[in-house]
Amino acid sequence: MKHILIIGIGAGDPDYLTVQAIKALNRADVFFVMDKGPAKEKLVALRKEICRRYIEDDDYRIVEATCPERVRDVSDYRASVDDLNADKQAVFERLIAEELADGECGAFLVWGDPALYDSTIRIVEAIARSGRHVLDFEVIPGISSIQALVAKHRTTLNSIGQALEITPARRLAEGFPERLDSVLVMLDAKNTYKRFVGEDMDIFWGAYVGTPDEILIGGRLAEVADEIEQVRAEARSRHGWIMDTYLLRRRVGE
Amino acid sequence: MKHILIIGIGAGDPDYLTVQAIKALNRADVFFVMDKGPAKEKLVALRKEICRRYIEDDDYRIVEATCPERVRDVSDYRASVDDLNADKQAVFERLIAEELADGECGAFLVWGDPALYDSTIRIVEAIARSGRHVLDFEVIPGISSIQALVAKHRTTLNSIGQALEITPARRLAEGFPERLDSVLVMLDAKNTYKRFVGEDMDIFWGAYVGTPDEILIGGRLAEVADEIEQVRAEARSRHGWIMDTYLLRRRVGE
Repeated sequence: MKHILIIGIGAGDPDYLTVQAIKALNRADVFFVMDKGPAKEKLVALRKEICRRYIEDDDYRIVEATCPERVRDVSDYRASVDDLNADKQAVFERLIAEELADGECGAFLVWGDPALYDSTIRIVEAIARSGRHVLDFEVIPGISSIQALVAKHRTTLNSIGQALEITPARRLAEGFPERLDSVLVMLDAKNTYKRFVGEDMDIFWGAYVGTPDEILIGGRLAEVADEIEQVRAEARSRHGWIMDTYLLRRRVGE
Repeated sequence: MKHILIIGIGAGDPDYLTVQAIKALNRADVFFVMDKGPAKEKLVALRKEICRRYIEDDDYRIVEATCPERVRDVSDYRASVDDLNADKQAVFERLIAEELADGECGAFLVWGDPALYDSTIRIVEAIARSGRHVLDFEVIPGISSIQALVAKHRTTLNSIGQALEITPARRLAEGFPERLDSVLVMLDAKNTYKRFVGEDMDIFWGAYVGTPDEILIGGRLAEVADEIEQVRAEARSRHGWIMDTYLLRRRVGE
């Protein structure tokens, strides 16, 4: 039996790790590290810092693998994600087959919470289900970027008694959900919030939340939308990448 | 200046505390504890256990206060919550005025994440905004019950590329959101999931998640709905209270 731990390591700040995650780090024999893109170097360094800080013995290995990237700007988003996940599964499966001995424990460290817009759980589950490996796995939740965002803004995810939606920006582009007043937006490359500047809303925006590069802007959408767009473009150009998220909330009943 | 820490302590298991939360616990001079109802004794004991386990010095005080309860089964839910929060604010304000000296740091320990279906942030913000106290506050995010739930079920909150809704059951009773396939349901006293047994959905249900009393049931909704209803009723009767939540997910594209 091989054991896999899918560990949520929170949204950037090593202080977001839970005691459960730290215990899990200390159980792992091997860490599989597969960052990608222009942020790769910084993210790999942060993972290694987390291991250094929290693991008591140094009898662990880190295996770096090349992570396949999704083909951008294709018409069929779902198919491109399926292709990507098939490629990822092949990489994960090779790591489990070649880098993890029977009886050993391997760990994937996932930014934020593995349950939110991350494919690791689905891929490991598919490998376990395939029956090609004798495999067990556990999931350790982590502080997601949206929780870090609203905590830094000292606001809530929902308003009193109301529902909220968490959505990729491509779906928000179809319109603000009718029944709802609060929407958390992930993966927005196109400043989708600008579509709603004519409506009476607040925005709570953050980039690199939980890291030393953190930027926060909040306020009435119509008043801060331009500032966010400009700050976002500058930050993206300066860092070569950006990871941002925001809460849009209708002003109602005030 | 008085300082307030609103600390998310996670969904029951003391291992869900983050390093950030543990550091915050160690900064507090006073803890305000205000549990209520039939679970009160157990919850107060759990909070005290968290303090004992994680605080290095014992130079802190715990102040217990009676927490006002919402009037149940009223026609105007929002008004009853507003009344409750006004009562709570009066209690919080008395604690801050009488139990916290200038320069001291007081802490509210919130189950799960303070940003999700909890009023502490709103109340403390209103007190700070009132100008009646010289007050600063910070929010520390925590692992919410829905994150603990899906981690234990080893599933994700969202499906690939899709949005998800987090909602109180009273709103789900109006219908399953049209554009969505995944709904996380909080505060369901009425087995609202049973309305959807005719549709092709999975349910991932859990009660007392993260505690030694944890119960998990997952599967095709039509097949497990009766079991959940029965187990839920038994558990509620045995413990005198229940805290449960679930994920409903349409089976699509399979």
